[in-house]
Amino acid sequence: MSPGETLRALREQKPLIHQITNYVVMNETANATLAIGALPVMAHALEEVEELASVAGALVLNIGTLSQHWIEAMLLAGKAANRSGAPVILDPVGVGATRLRTDTAKRILDEVEVAVLRGNPAETAALAGVEAEIRGVESIGTAAEGANLAREAAATLGIVASVTGAVDHVSDGQRTIAVANGDPLLATITGSGCMSTALTGCFLAVRPAEPLAAAADALAAFGVAGEDAAAVADGPGTFHAALYDALYNLTPDELDRRAKVGEA
Amino acid sequence: MSPGETLRALREQKPLIHQITNYVVMNETANATLAIGALPVMAHALEEVEELASVAGALVLNIGTLSQHWIEAMLLAGKAANRSGAPVILDPVGVGATRLRTDTAKRILDEVEVAVLRGNPAETAALAGVEAEIRGVESIGTAAEGANLAREAAATLGIVASVTGAVDHVSDGQRTIAVANGDPLLATITGSGCMSTALTGCFLAVRPAEPLAAAADALAAFGVAGEDAAAVADGPGTFHAALYDALYNLTPDELDRRAKVGEA
Amino acid sequence: MSPGETLRALREQKPLIHQITNYVVMNETANATLAIGALPVMAHALEEVEELASVAGALVLNIGTLSQHWIEAMLLAGKAANRSGAPVILDPVGVGATRLRTDTAKRILDEVEVAVLRGNPAETAALAGVEAEIRGVESIGTAAEGANLAREAAATLGIVASVTGAVDHVSDGQRTIAVANGDPLLATITGSGCMSTALTGCFLAVRPAEPLAAAADALAAFGVAGEDAAAVADGPGTFHAALYDALYNLTPDELDRRAKVGEA
Repeated sequence: MSPGETLRALREQKPLIHQITNYVVMNETANATLAIGALPVMAHALEEVEELASVAGALVLNIGTLSQHWIEAMLLAGKAANRSGAPVILDPVGVGATRLRTDTAKRILDEVEVAVLRGNPAETAALAGVEAEIRGVESIGTAAEGANLAREAAATLGIVASVTGAVDHVSDGQRTIAVANGDPLLATITGSGCMSTALTGCFLAVRPAEPLAAAADALAAFGVAGEDAAAVADGPGTFHAALYDALYNLTPDELDRRAKVGEA
Repeated sequence: MSPGETLRALREQKPLIHQITNYVVMNETANATLAIGALPVMAHALEEVEELASVAGALVLNIGTLSQHWIEAMLLAGKAANRSGAPVILDPVGVGATRLRTDTAKRILDEVEVAVLRGNPAETAALAGVEAEIRGVESIGTAAEGANLAREAAATLGIVASVTGAVDHVSDGQRTIAVANGDPLLATITGSGCMSTALTGCFLAVRPAEPLAAAADALAAFGVAGEDAAAVADGPGTFHAALYDALYNLTPDELDRRAKVGEA
Repeated sequence: MSPGETLRALREQKPLIHQITNYVVMNETANATLAIGALPVMAHALEEVEELASVAGALVLNIGTLSQHWIEAMLLAGKAANRSGAPVILDPVGVGATRLRTDTAKRILDEVEVAVLRGNPAETAALAGVEAEIRGVESIGTAAEGANLAREAAATLGIVASVTGAVDHVSDGQRTIAVANGDPLLATITGSGCMSTALTGCFLAVRPAEPLAAAADALAAFGVAGEDAAAVADGPGTFHAALYDALYNLTPDELDRRAKVGEA
């Protein structure tokens, strides 16, 4: 399946994407999910996360603004998604910056079968046991070693590691794919990483058996949309609005024509 | 009072609209409230909701991202609004999708005197006891039967039912009003339903004795703004920004001229 | 240091700004922080706020949507910031409107050494013990007496008081500075006050020894950006998007040329 074919399937199936995410970006990830053609449902109550996770096409967990109640909800929902076979995508926002975030991400990886870990280089390095310095959640990582980092994290953690940066790298430990789409303006708005995680959930929902390819294609779609938005933007605010337009207007053919996806 | 006259009164009185709503759309409903000319106050702490609800012109309850603490706050605030005579508007986001949401909406309807229930067809059907299938919170309902559904829900629940879709239907069980304004782009952003609920609160605050007319006029105002925003938008992102512009720039005369409000 | 020199230092140092703020504006203040050139981190868990506050360049506390857990987190983080020497900026959203908000703001001022209190006239008056009427969080205050109010609040509370309105006034009780930048459209979007507080944190992070000047310069930068955004906006929605563009595109030279900052 090409990236465009996956996008076409997504628009036809309109999968339900359950997201337990942080307060800062909830609106953004819900809108990105809608714009690409899927249906978001945001819910964190212990009393309902299992019901929702068990009917969703994918579950996205994002630890950007944790508290105890939400951690328990993520674990409950993750296990329910595992039972129903829905892929789980984890965004370890700020891992390495505080003990709570590091411990929580590790606990989720330990208790839940995570299909894809989508993080920046510093977050991924912290989880994979590689030394790295993190400065806030909008951290700048070591982009050049992206491919090695993705491969090592995937092998160590036994998941697909999706490491985003100037060039993104996605690896299952054996194959590593580079995605060279995107625009520097993506780093000027909060939640662009979280949006790429949500889109990863959308693509995995229609291609759960191929998490490596689906994760790479999601980043290509997001990157192409970022390129389109940058072309009409005057700065981060108009870029942000144009990004949803671009996700919504992106056609499967256009995605196939412009996706820069290849072996790393 | 025409829709435009209600809008004129709203802009003069600038009613305070207390909203206990979901995390995803808080910013959106506060901005829609400001753009139409009212004053939002968002507060959910048990220690302060009664104080605020008792001085507000209307109270909007939205169950989009529930947790136990928030449910108790909604009940406390609802009873305080009832005591002070401020109309209560309920948005039963995702009712039917989980037991928690269904139980909570029913409990609010049971313990609080709700003036208007603003939902989509599937949510309304779930509460009125009509069989319906819900798929996520952005569900697509049975639009053709909207008028019957609104009438039945209003009669069964003893409230004004405001059912939004391609054509909206508002009923008190006896009279049913159809509102034919709007644009398909409204369905491409999260929170458009929640915004229409917030605006329903704004209109009821200045016309509390006529909830049927006020709820219909609010939907007409929102729909006309949606039409104006769609005329300048390139997709969901620019539509979203233009929607606040359109609400802010909507004049009472323009609303009267373009409102498609009539007996169903 | 001129306002532009402070902005230049900010862009070079990219300080980390820890924010414990309200649900409504989290995305907005994070994006404003990024747009001006600093790094936001939003975190409220008791288990991690001390770790973050102790490495941040400034801590911003905003009481717009309180609950008990968040109040404790604000106090813990505030004390940690005091220990590490990071300036604490308090936004007392809605103080005077409910007992919980008034008590909480007073408790923070009592237990934490606050560098700058950034509020509107009604909120500031309520904390300084001056009689004032508050109507919602988007309240309109007594702008003419701004200079006196800022001076009195600063002297009474022993802090820098930053009182925003048509003209802003910032005082340490001895010197009082007026800032005459801005645009009426700032009052049409929710969170503009909260954004000015976040920017105050950004400027104080690079100039902690001069809170009076840094707070005034932050308001000048925000006001100039508001003027630029208004020049291209059609209403509150496009203004909101353009505001981030303007913050991002604002150059130190442009800020120095246009800042209307002077003794009151």
